[in-house]
Amino acid sequence: MIEKNGVVLVLSGPSGAGKSSLIHKIDKDIGDYYFSISTTTRSPREGEIEGVHYHFVSKESFVKDIEEDNFLEHAIVHGNYYGTSLRPVREALSEGKLVIFDIDVQGNMAIKNRLGDITTSVFITPPTLSELKHRLENRSTDDKEVIDGRIKVARREIQRTSEYDFIVVNDDLDIAANVLRQIAITARLKIPHDKINEFVQQWEDIE
Amino acid sequence: MIEKNGVVLVLSGPSGAGKSSLIHKIDKDIGDYYFSISTTTRSPREGEIEGVHYHFVSKESFVKDIEEDNFLEHAIVHGNYYGTSLRPVREALSEGKLVIFDIDVQGNMAIKNRLGDITTSVFITPPTLSELKHRLENRSTDDKEVIDGRIKVARREIQRTSEYDFIVVNDDLDIAANVLRQIAITARLKIPHDKINEFVQQWEDIE
Repeated sequence: MIEKNGVVLVLSGPSGAGKSSLIHKIDKDIGDYYFSISTTTRSPREGEIEGVHYHFVSKESFVKDIEEDNFLEHAIVHGNYYGTSLRPVREALSEGKLVIFDIDVQGNMAIKNRLGDITTSVFITPPTLSELKHRLENRSTDDKEVIDGRIKVARREIQRTSEYDFIVVNDDLDIAANVLRQIAITARLKIPHDKINEFVQQWEDIE
Repeated sequence: MIEKNGVVLVLSGPSGAGKSSLIHKIDKDIGDYYFSISTTTRSPREGEIEGVHYHFVSKESFVKDIEEDNFLEHAIVHGNYYGTSLRPVREALSEGKLVIFDIDVQGNMAIKNRLGDITTSVFITPPTLSELKHRLENRSTDDKEVIDGRIKVARREIQRTSEYDFIVVNDDLDIAANVLRQIAITARLKIPHDKINEFVQQWEDIE
């Protein structure tokens, strides 16, 4: 049972869409939040830090966590496991926090199924494909093969943007941040179904 | 075909929930909007004004409009027809307005089916059933039979609040107005699926 005092904000979109920059720009304005860190069995890329970008674990450890039902959602992508541990999310929600996920379209659907009543989902996209290429090349953290892979994923994911509550085109960072801030603040106003049911029950009890 | 430059805000909830007072409190802050007026075949109650509370029409006229597909949605309640004319809604949406509907749970589902991609729905409720009774009795516009009918409908509709994006408990009018204002402003950020599809198409065209 997940005690839903908090709410969920799902952010999806290609790397290079500017999700981190956007969160950084609005993080003073959205109240107490918890940014969910995914767990993966793939090896860290250059510059990736344990506990910041991912929790890096062995395949054995991951499979054990699946068996013990410790994941909110998990998936296999290119032979690597990715997942979201349930425990920190459950804690953050019980503490009334806004829980932010940076997760792919597959993960968005999984979270919608588990926490749909308190979830607001946002797909963040660069204005054009060539702008995305430009941004990925300029970061120069990734080699050509990784960039090509990211572009391929972006083209596939953008087909599924209609599964999201909102789409934010990140052309001008300040404008996109204003839009995302507005959405994040409104996301707080979601009331979980179990609390609604309590409220409805109380209506029935009278008289 | 409905040209979706605008967005939709559905407000449901029992009479006595304070929908009109809330709209009045926020109407300076939510930009250019069009408040949809329903059409009905029932007779005006005391104090109800043609074109303000409803468009009052004959059954013949209503049925003709159904046959000509002139309604966005319509339903029969207690033997009377209620419906929303398509034309003014289509006009307001093409002009980029926020279209506000004060409509029942049945109407909400119908609008969700037609305009779900640009719709934000809000159920507004008094804090308790006894408060609702109190408010309806104090308005003294309705006789006991009408009040009992409204209470009955309220008890039934509150079972379906989970069909809404947001629930606003109108206990303190100022607090509820702040919440609704926030929701209405964020509702503007919805992008219709056809515009998203154009955007996605443009990604495909490149390269």
